[in-house]
Amino acid sequence: MKIYDISMSVFYDMPVYKKKAAKRPVLNVESDFISGAVYETKLEMNMHTGTHIDAPLHMLEDGYTIDKLDLKKVITTCKVFDFKHVEGKISQEHLEEKNISAGDFIILKTKNSYEDILEGEFIYLDKQGAEYLRNKKIIGVGIDALGIERAQPNHETHTLLLGEGIVILEGLRLKEVEEAEYLLVAAPINVVGAEAAPVRAVLIKQQAVPL
Amino acid sequence: MKIYDISMSVFYDMPVYKKKAAKRPVLNVESDFISGAVYETKLEMNMHTGTHIDAPLHMLEDGYTIDKLDLKKVITTCKVFDFKHVEGKISQEHLEEKNISAGDFIILKTKNSYEDILEGEFIYLDKQGAEYLRNKKIIGVGIDALGIERAQPNHETHTLLLGEGIVILEGLRLKEVEEAEYLLVAAPINVVGAEAAPVRAVLIKQQAVPL
Repeated sequence: MKIYDISMSVFYDMPVYKKKAAKRPVLNVESDFISGAVYETKLEMNMHTGTHIDAPLHMLEDGYTIDKLDLKKVITTCKVFDFKHVEGKISQEHLEEKNISAGDFIILKTKNSYEDILEGEFIYLDKQGAEYLRNKKIIGVGIDALGIERAQPNHETHTLLLGEGIVILEGLRLKEVEEAEYLLVAAPINVVGAEAAPVRAVLIKQQAVPL
Repeated sequence: MKIYDISMSVFYDMPVYKKKAAKRPVLNVESDFISGAVYETKLEMNMHTGTHIDAPLHMLEDGYTIDKLDLKKVITTCKVFDFKHVEGKISQEHLEEKNISAGDFIILKTKNSYEDILEGEFIYLDKQGAEYLRNKKIIGVGIDALGIERAQPNHETHTLLLGEGIVILEGLRLKEVEEAEYLLVAAPINVVGAEAAPVRAVLIKQQAVPL
C-alpha cells in the first residue's frame, strides 16, 4: 500500500487565497515546559485555508453544512487527470479528452502543483468546465488551487457545482502523483455548522502483489 | 467497503477534557450573505479538543512535532479491542487477554463510548498497561477518551508511550464498532510545529464479495 500525502502544510507563511491576511493560520502556544508541564497550542484558522472541503453553505444560503457531508463521497476511488500543460484555465475542451463517468470523483492536476502561483494567477476551472462535469454527474472534484475559480462573476463555478451537491476539494498538492486511479481519503474535520473544514487528504495505491 | 466514522463532532458544547473552558472550540462567522457574497467561518481550537493525535512534543521537550509523523503509522490495519465491561482503568491484566503483536495499532473501546463520563471519571490506560504495550512493540494506540490517562503523576502513560514513538490517538467514538480488524485512516491536519492536531479518524472494513 503506497500512501501519497496530497495536503498542504499549515503555517503562518503558507500560500493563502489572494494573499488575504485573514486567511493566515495562527498557532498560539498555550502551555510550554516553562509555564507548565505539557506543551499545548491553539490554532486559529479560516476554514478555507490549506487543504479543505467546501460544503454548499459556502455559496448557497440554504446549502448544507460540512457536518452533513456523506463520507462515502470523499472516501472513494478517484481519477487524477494531468492538466499540467494547460494555461489559464481548465474548460470543457480539456475535460472532453478524459474518461469521465457518472459517479466519478475527479482530481485536476495543474501547473499550480509546480509553479509559485497559488496566491496569484493560478489555474482554475471555468464555468463551461463545471457545466460539463455537472452533466457528467460526477460526485466530486479536487484541484491543486486554493479556489476552484479565481475571479468569475457570482462565483459561477462554485455555485454550479455546490448546487448539484458535487463536493469541492481545494488546496491539493499533486506534484508527486501521476495520472491514474487511486483510493481517495479526504474526510474533513467534523465542524458542526461550518461551510467548510480542513482535511488531510491522501491518495492510496494498492501495490501489485509480488509473484 | 463499509466506513465507520469514529470521530467526535466539533462544537462549542462538545465534551472537552476536564471541562476546561480553554478547550472549547469557537467558530466565528467572518462573512455571511448579509455582510458579503459568501459564507466563511474561522475556527479557534486547542489541538487536544475532539479527536486528535498527540506527537511527542506534547510531553517531551525534545519530542518531534505532529508534522513529522509518518502517515504509515496512522494509515494501517488496526485491532479494535472491546473493554466495555472494564471499570476504572485498563491495565496489563486486561491487555494480556488479547492478541497483540509487534507492529500493531490497537484501539481500546471502553465504557467511555457508552456513558456520559468523558469530562469526568473516564476509563483510561494505566502505567502498567502502557508498559505492557511498549514491551509488545505496538506502533500506536487509540482510545475513546479525551486523554489516554486521567490524573497520574508526571503523565506517566503519555510519557512512556510518546518516549517510544508510539502514536496516541485520543477522542474516538466507538459505540458502532465491534471488536475486529479494520483499516484505520487517521491522518491529522498537518500543522507545522504543533504538538498535536485534529483528525477525522475512520475505520474501513472491506466487505465480503457476494458469491
